[in-house]
Formats: sequence, structure tokens, C-alpha cells
Amino acid sequence: MRTVDPLHVQLLRLLRDEGAVSRAELGDRLRMPRPRLLAELQRLVGLGYVAEAGLAASRGGRRSTLVELSPRLRFAAVDLGASSIDVEVVNGRLEPVAAYAESADIRSGPKVTLQRVNELLHKARADGAYERLDAVGVGVPGPVSFRDGVPVSPPIMPGWDRFPVRELLTREHGCPAVVDNDVNIMAIGERHGGVAHSVDNFLLIKIGTGIGCGIYLNGEVYRGTDGCAGDIGHIQVDPNGPMCSCGNPGCLEAVFSGAALARDATTAARAGVSPALAERLTARGVVTALDVAQGAVEGDLTCIQLIRDGGRRLGSVLAGLVSFTNPSMIVIGGGLAQLGHILLAEIRSVVYRRSLPLATGNLPVVLSELGPRAGVAGAAVLASDLAFGEAS
Amino acid sequence: MRTVDPLHVQLLRLLRDEGAVSRAELGDRLRMPRPRLLAELQRLVGLGYVAEAGLAASRGGRRSTLVELSPRLRFAAVDLGASSIDVEVVNGRLEPVAAYAESADIRSGPKVTLQRVNELLHKARADGAYERLDAVGVGVPGPVSFRDGVPVSPPIMPGWDRFPVRELLTREHGCPAVVDNDVNIMAIGERHGGVAHSVDNFLLIKIGTGIGCGIYLNGEVYRGTDGCAGDIGHIQVDPNGPMCSCGNPGCLEAVFSGAALARDATTAARAGVSPALAERLTARGVVTALDVAQGAVEGDLTCIQLIRDGGRRLGSVLAGLVSFTNPSMIVIGGGLAQLGHILLAEIRSVVYRRSLPLATGNLPVVLSELGPRAGVAGAAVLASDLAFGEAS
Repeated sequence: MRTVDPLHVQLLRLLRDEGAVSRAELGDRLRMPRPRLLAELQRLVGLGYVAEAGLAASRGGRRSTLVELSPRLRFAAVDLGASSIDVEVVNGRLEPVAAYAESADIRSGPKVTLQRVNELLHKARADGAYERLDAVGVGVPGPVSFRDGVPVSPPIMPGWDRFPVRELLTREHGCPAVVDNDVNIMAIGERHGGVAHSVDNFLLIKIGTGIGCGIYLNGEVYRGTDGCAGDIGHIQVDPNGPMCSCGNPGCLEAVFSGAALARDATTAARAGVSPALAERLTARGVVTALDVAQGAVEGDLTCIQLIRDGGRRLGSVLAGLVSFTNPSMIVIGGGLAQLGHILLAEIRSVVYRRSLPLATGNLPVVLSELGPRAGVAGAAVLASDLAFGEAS
Repeated sequence: MRTVDPLHVQLLRLLRDEGAVSRAELGDRLRMPRPRLLAELQRLVGLGYVAEAGLAASRGGRRSTLVELSPRLRFAAVDLGASSIDVEVVNGRLEPVAAYAESADIRSGPKVTLQRVNELLHKARADGAYERLDAVGVGVPGPVSFRDGVPVSPPIMPGWDRFPVRELLTREHGCPAVVDNDVNIMAIGERHGGVAHSVDNFLLIKIGTGIGCGIYLNGEVYRGTDGCAGDIGHIQVDPNGPMCSCGNPGCLEAVFSGAALARDATTAARAGVSPALAERLTARGVVTALDVAQGAVEGDLTCIQLIRDGGRRLGSVLAGLVSFTNPSMIVIGGGLAQLGHILLAEIRSVVYRRSLPLATGNLPVVLSELGPRAGVAGAAVLASDLAFGEAS
């Protein structure tokens, strides 16, 4: 691996996050002497990363030249879920210039899934979204060896174990690629442009089909020894609870998750205790976790109780993790974040009651700000960081 | 705060950890050109940090001069427990030149406790252990603001909240001081010279009167936003369990710790179910956690069962933390590490059964190597790092 000049990356990140900046201000902000800055900029213009953008407003003397990231820069951001593909092509400032979202089953395997990703990206090119990509960032719903760019023993991704995801994308698009866990890219997204902006220690809880946790500690994503840190879905919350797909009883995910909630909602609808759910089951033959959210908004007591029970279970796990990590914030994201305030209220209540007062004195428990875009937003950040490092 | 030259600190650490090294080897190891190295060494000799130590064996050409840390260097390492004071004075290589250990009640407050620490250190000086101290490192049994050098809302340390521990020691001994949590200094000790040597991600569980956890992530101690990370004693393990001193029912510490074990052992002795414990209660009027350890060694079934039950409770919490942090090692330390193999076997059994196979594929669960010295050993490392930083 090449050594990366940190000042270099800093310069490109500054232009990414703030847009056009005058040379004079860049020199001040990076504490870089003018001759070195000009040489640096010239090199980056030559590499196609930076472009001039007219003159800045006067600061009293001669007007300084504005520079910005080249308008040609393009990154691809891919968020693979258990049952979805989200793809965005973004410009240097990470603004989407093309976006695609569709249903897909991760269990159809890496070849089928990545072929579809490639098709969507080629379509974006045909539609004029880019001429060439500078980097690709991908999130997958399972543990990842970040160093090797491959999934590692992902429980819900048959056929993906050690599949060379990074290599395949690099070859297909002729640019560097980076692979990470789906929850990590959400956390990166929220920290870069969402509710956790500039927060150094926080946990992002994704509640979707399953439950996972992205971990930011000391300003960095923490991935663990094998890349599977944050796998909180299989923490036991009830030794007498329902059997989990992992073979143990009462895992958090077996008790509260999209799948668990759909199961409990179906039971409630059949038992006739919930008019809201029974109506939906009759109409569509199936009820989902989102029906529970909708039922709760309409005031259905069973739906409200299901969400409260789930929030209590999740809250008890989070209380332990708060005592353990002493974070500055907890962010709730993923599809079931739509369960909204009832869920948040219950989580807060358990966490504040059960953790050390010192650790919860000033601990916001908040909803994701970027919602369904959190994943692709983070994948775009990763892709741009990778490209900026390579440009050094 | 002054900026610290990392190369400087690296040089001093190398001499601390490896002893006398030739100038030629130093230059190679630090990739430092000879003129700069010589200037650097001369400065450090002038500051009294480094001394010459004769000539190295020939590497083929001219023999290179050996350098080592000045034999005059002295650090004080202090480990304050709930009921004990351990003090060591160590030389530059962190070898003890004086050591004191005695019972003390942390609840007697900071003035009484720190006065006793100062008396012990002055006694060490009178005994010829040092002329002056270069830094003091202290661990206390509660949350610490590492930046401010003060305990913060420590639950079992009345009178210590925000007491200026660092300032008082600095003034008394005329050298810089550093304050950390007792479990953190144990983790630092085990990583520097114990079982976790060079392990980047590990958890150190201290089982003493209470239970706490030291956290090493990515090669650094992780302390959390308010300095109270690792407070796992108040994670709930049994909603119907005994009331904890914190006011919540069924905390880990209320179910398994030195105090909880003494309580359960007393009950068992009185109920007549344990001959080993009953005998000790009759003989001394009181039974402790160590009596349970001794009883287990003698084959007393109740004692073995008490340890197994505790190990299962602790194991269930650790299984969750393993899923969350995906560490490379778990180290069990503190006074109750003497419960030994029965405890380890039970913890391993629960952790391996309940965590992701990926996270436990190669996860040693081992006993502390430094035993009761782990704390002072880590405090000495902290003190030397602080002094080396100041020397830059």
C-alpha cells in the first residue's frame, strides 16, 4: 500500500465538504505556505481532481482564485440490503446525480446481485451521469474483512463468503473500490452529513429485517478483530424467548426486528386482538412490521404494545452497551425507525433508568436524519476518501 | 498542551522496553539519519533521560556506543483499590526498586488516602529508592476524567468527586502526574508486560469487590465520552435478582462479585448445605469470596456451584460484549481471578455457545498474568509515557 499524504487528503476533503474555496483561505486553513499550496493544486488540477472556479470576493487586497473539486469527479455508492439494492452516482461534493432503488434478494448470491449493480451503473453512464467513475463504495448486510474487501461468513448471505466483491467491482469499473458492512456505512453517512455530524463516540442501531449496530469510537468506525463488531442481534434478551435462526433461544433479533414484529403481528391479527392488523391481514393476506407502525399511528392498542415491548427489549441491550461504551449519542435507523416516537420513548425510558447517571447525563437518543439514504451517503464518503488517498 | 514529537517518545519507549541498545541499531530501528540521532541523544543526555553504557559488540566495523535510559530515572506507580493501596517506585525499565502494599478504605476520602500515598513515597525516598521522581501514575476505583486528572462521580468513593488528585500529587512530588481508572491501568499493564502483549483489541475483566472492564480497541485504551466506559457491573442480568447498591435489581455486580459471593457463601454456610463454608464461618465468624475459592479446590460442591453460577452470569454479559466488540482476547483479573479454572471453564462455555462463531473462532479467555501487580505495572507505563512526552 502507498503512503498517503494526510495534508493532501485534508485538502480534497475540505473542497468536498465545503465547495469552492479561495486559494488564500485554503492556505490559511491548511497552514500551508503559498508556494507549496500552488504546486499541490497544480498537481491535483493535472490529475483531474481540482478545477479553478473564478475569483473570490476581495479580502481587501488582490482577489484570490477560487478552487473546487473537478465537476467531472464521480463516485458510485451502493447499499446492498437483505432485500434491496440502492445505487447512487454522486459528484465530488457527494450530491446525487443518479439514483436507483429496487427490491432484490441478497440470497440470490454475489454474481446475480453484483451483475445487477453493474447493470444499474452502466445504465447511469448511458443516461449521462458519468464518463468514468473515480471510486466505488459498497455496503453489504454482513461481516466484512475491510482490509481484504470481502464478506466473511455472512449469516444471511449464502454464497458470499470471501467472494472478491472489491476485486470484481474494481475490474468492472476500472477504479478503486471499498467494501464495508451495511451498518458501518450508515454510521459513516450520519456522521458526515447527518444527525451525528462531528460526534466522536456514537452507536447507530439499524432495525430492519434484523438488528445491527455501527460503532464510532474516538472519531473512527470501529470494526473489530474480524470485522464483525456490532453484531448485537444475537445478544440474548430472554432465555425462554423464541428460537433464533442462529440456533440460540431469545436473541434480540428473534424477539424484536422486522421479521419478529411481522411474526407477532400475524399472530395478533389471527387472534383477533387487533382490529387494525386483522383488517390488513384480511385485505392483503399478510401483515408486516410497517403495518404495526401504521396501526400504532391510528391508535391500535395492540400495535402500540408490540412496539413498546420491542423498545423495552432493545432498550435493555442498549443500556448495557451505554454502560460499556459511554457514548455521546445513540442513533436509531433502518426501516423500522419508522416506528418512531413510541419506540424512541420506550428505548429512552429503559436506557436512562438502567445505565449509570454519569453516562446518560447528556445522552441524546435520536432518529437517523438521512433515513433510507444513510447507507449510500456513507458509501459515497468511503469511496471519495479512497479516491482522495489514491490521488496523493 | 505542548506538541509531542512522536519519534522522541518512540526512542525513549524503545530504551524502556528493550534496555541498552547501540546507536547504530537505534538509527536503523527508528529510521533516523545519524546526525539527527546523535543530536537527539545528546539533548536527552543533557535532560538526564539517557546515558551511555559502553560499547556494543562489533557488527563488522567500528563498535557502536550503547545507550540506555538514565539509571537515575524513577517513576511512582500507585494502585488505589476499594480496600487497598499498592505503591511501587520503578526505574526507567519499569523494574520495581521499592514496593508497598497495605489495606486502606477508599471511603476515608481523598485527603487521608493521598496523604498515606505521599507518606509511603517519602518513606521510599528515605530508604534510598529515589532522589527525585520523574512522574507519578495513579489508578482509582471509579470513573476518571483522564484529561482533567480527577475522579468523576465515583459511586464507591465518597468525597472524591472532582478532587484534584493530579494537581495534589504534582505539587507534592514536583513532577507530572496522570490519573486513570483502576481497570484501565490493569489493562495497560497486561498489554505492556503481560498476557495481552501486543494484542490490539481485548477486554480485561476485573472481578474484585465489584466488577469492571478495561477496554483496548485498535491498540489504545478506550475511555468513553465521560471516562466511564467499561462500567459493566451494572448491566442487568436478572430482572428478578437481588437489589444492587445502585438501586436497580439484578445488576451483574449484585449477582456475581466479591461482595455478592461473600453474601451467598454466608447464606450457604448458615443453611448447612456446605461443610467447607460452615466450618469457616464457625471458626472465624465470617466467610469471604476467597473461602469459596478454597472450598472449591477442596471439592465442596456448593462452592463449585456458586462459582459456576457466577461464571454463567458473567459469561452471558461477556457473550454480548464479544458480539459487540469482536475482540482478540478476554483477560480475567482482580482478586477473584483466584476462582481459577472452574470460573474460566464456565465463562468460556457460555461465551463460545452464545457469540457469533466468527467472533469466537480464535478467542482466548485467559487469566491475568501479572496478578495483583497488573495495576501498578500499568500505572508505571502511564507515568513513563507522560514523562517521555514532557521530555520532548
